[in-house]
Amino acid sequence: MTAEAVAPAASRPLVSRLSLNQQTTKSWSLAEALDGCRRHGLESVGVWREPVAEVGLDEAARLVRESGLRVSSLCRGGFVTAAAGPERARALADNRAAIDEAAALGAASLVLVVGGLPADAPRDLVGARQRVADALGELAPYARERGVLLALEPLHPMFAADRAVLSTLGQAVDLAEQHPAEAVGVVVDTYHVWWDPQVLEQVARAAGRIASFQLCDWLTPIPAEALMGRGMPGDGHIDFAPLVDAVLAAGYTGDVEVELFNREIWAADPDEVVATMVERWHTLLSGR
Amino acid sequence: MTAEAVAPAASRPLVSRLSLNQQTTKSWSLAEALDGCRRHGLESVGVWREPVAEVGLDEAARLVRESGLRVSSLCRGGFVTAAAGPERARALADNRAAIDEAAALGAASLVLVVGGLPADAPRDLVGARQRVADALGELAPYARERGVLLALEPLHPMFAADRAVLSTLGQAVDLAEQHPAEAVGVVVDTYHVWWDPQVLEQVARAAGRIASFQLCDWLTPIPAEALMGRGMPGDGHIDFAPLVDAVLAAGYTGDVEVELFNREIWAADPDEVVATMVERWHTLLSGR
Repeated sequence: MTAEAVAPAASRPLVSRLSLNQQTTKSWSLAEALDGCRRHGLESVGVWREPVAEVGLDEAARLVRESGLRVSSLCRGGFVTAAAGPERARALADNRAAIDEAAALGAASLVLVVGGLPADAPRDLVGARQRVADALGELAPYARERGVLLALEPLHPMFAADRAVLSTLGQAVDLAEQHPAEAVGVVVDTYHVWWDPQVLEQVARAAGRIASFQLCDWLTPIPAEALMGRGMPGDGHIDFAPLVDAVLAAGYTGDVEVELFNREIWAADPDEVVATMVERWHTLLSGR
Repeated sequence: MTAEAVAPAASRPLVSRLSLNQQTTKSWSLAEALDGCRRHGLESVGVWREPVAEVGLDEAARLVRESGLRVSSLCRGGFVTAAAGPERARALADNRAAIDEAAALGAASLVLVVGGLPADAPRDLVGARQRVADALGELAPYARERGVLLALEPLHPMFAADRAVLSTLGQAVDLAEQHPAEAVGVVVDTYHVWWDPQVLEQVARAAGRIASFQLCDWLTPIPAEALMGRGMPGDGHIDFAPLVDAVLAAGYTGDVEVELFNREIWAADPDEVVATMVERWHTLLSGR
């Protein structure tokens, strides 16, 4: 059985397209996450590079193939905002390695978090955004040759300085459109885009370019570690149904990940976390 | 001498248009802030309602008149996202009181922070935004009759849930344009808008509608209290010169406030804070 033999998400009813992003059950190894998905009836998993590296790529690819699960995404590449020099060269090499890994794992996409303002140009937002575009120009052909879809992830504007200078879905689509649709798409992560007055029109505009769809809620108050405020869908302020409808109306045929950075969730029993995630998914679908 | 007799900001060179927003020197009373402004050669002050209430409106208006300072803004009204009912009625009454106060103080504008998602509809972002538009429809005529300019402040999207559902400058301009320019304008606060890929085009579009301009830097990491990450210009990640140029090119003729919520700055000697603020203003102007 090869990764390619796994039935694509599009042929499945929406209820079967829920995917566990490994970050949500951070304490689980790759093998444990794959087992957990199967135990809870999931057909898809979002994989991170670090747990893949722990067992080695060949073994990881074997485990994934044997699980029969779809790999909804590999997280992650990116961090390409440094100016020309050794740091940038290292970043581009690391992204090529990530593309190779995505190909080996049969991942539906490789998520790119593009990086924040570099230390040597901490106020050059315009320049950093241009360097992302330049890096994409170098990486897209490499990805296309290997059949890997790069998924540009706009992050919430609160992370513009230190994590991702790509701040809106519209901006991500602008960038993606400069490349073939089979090479570069965008991520729609509800946590990052829910506030945007243009979000529904930009999701529509992203038709044919949505490479990954992630559900995550916005919690208040923002926790002391701002990055850790990603909540289980239903625990926060996001009205998910219109966003799910918009992404489906835009023709998205992939799986729907839940990716949570949240210390309380990480400290909980992963099986309970996955059970809650599945329950919330059914609630969301039944309420539509 | 009446407040109206104070020379308008537009007749002054830019270097003389720096204004101390009272929040920056939070420990100072109104009288202390007015004295501090004069001691440091400032001609303008941004006033908050709480320190005005401490001395009473009549006394506050007298102090301001005697200081000879321009009042660049009164902070703040808003918080009008509740559904119809007693809470909304109270909010609208409070805004009318704030408009009266702004008129009595001769403030160039009344800043409105529109409010977050209400407790009884914590996921209804679309509805909350509509209620802001509705409230503005009620308040704009009242403000216009009293010669007060309402300044809609888009807040950084990180505050969309709990503080202001108005998240982009473009969205604020969309709202303002539904009313006469002498009744409703927008605030451009660098901290809230710097990340926006559309910020320069939206500032240009706001020509004739910019009611207040505030300088504040974006600090990293975001502090444990997210609201407190407002930095002295020059201490963070914002490239101010293009934003200042864009606001001036849009025809803005008012004062330029520095408004900082920052516990370290609040704990410092206010005179040192104001001295630093003035120094940074001169650095910014000389570097352009």
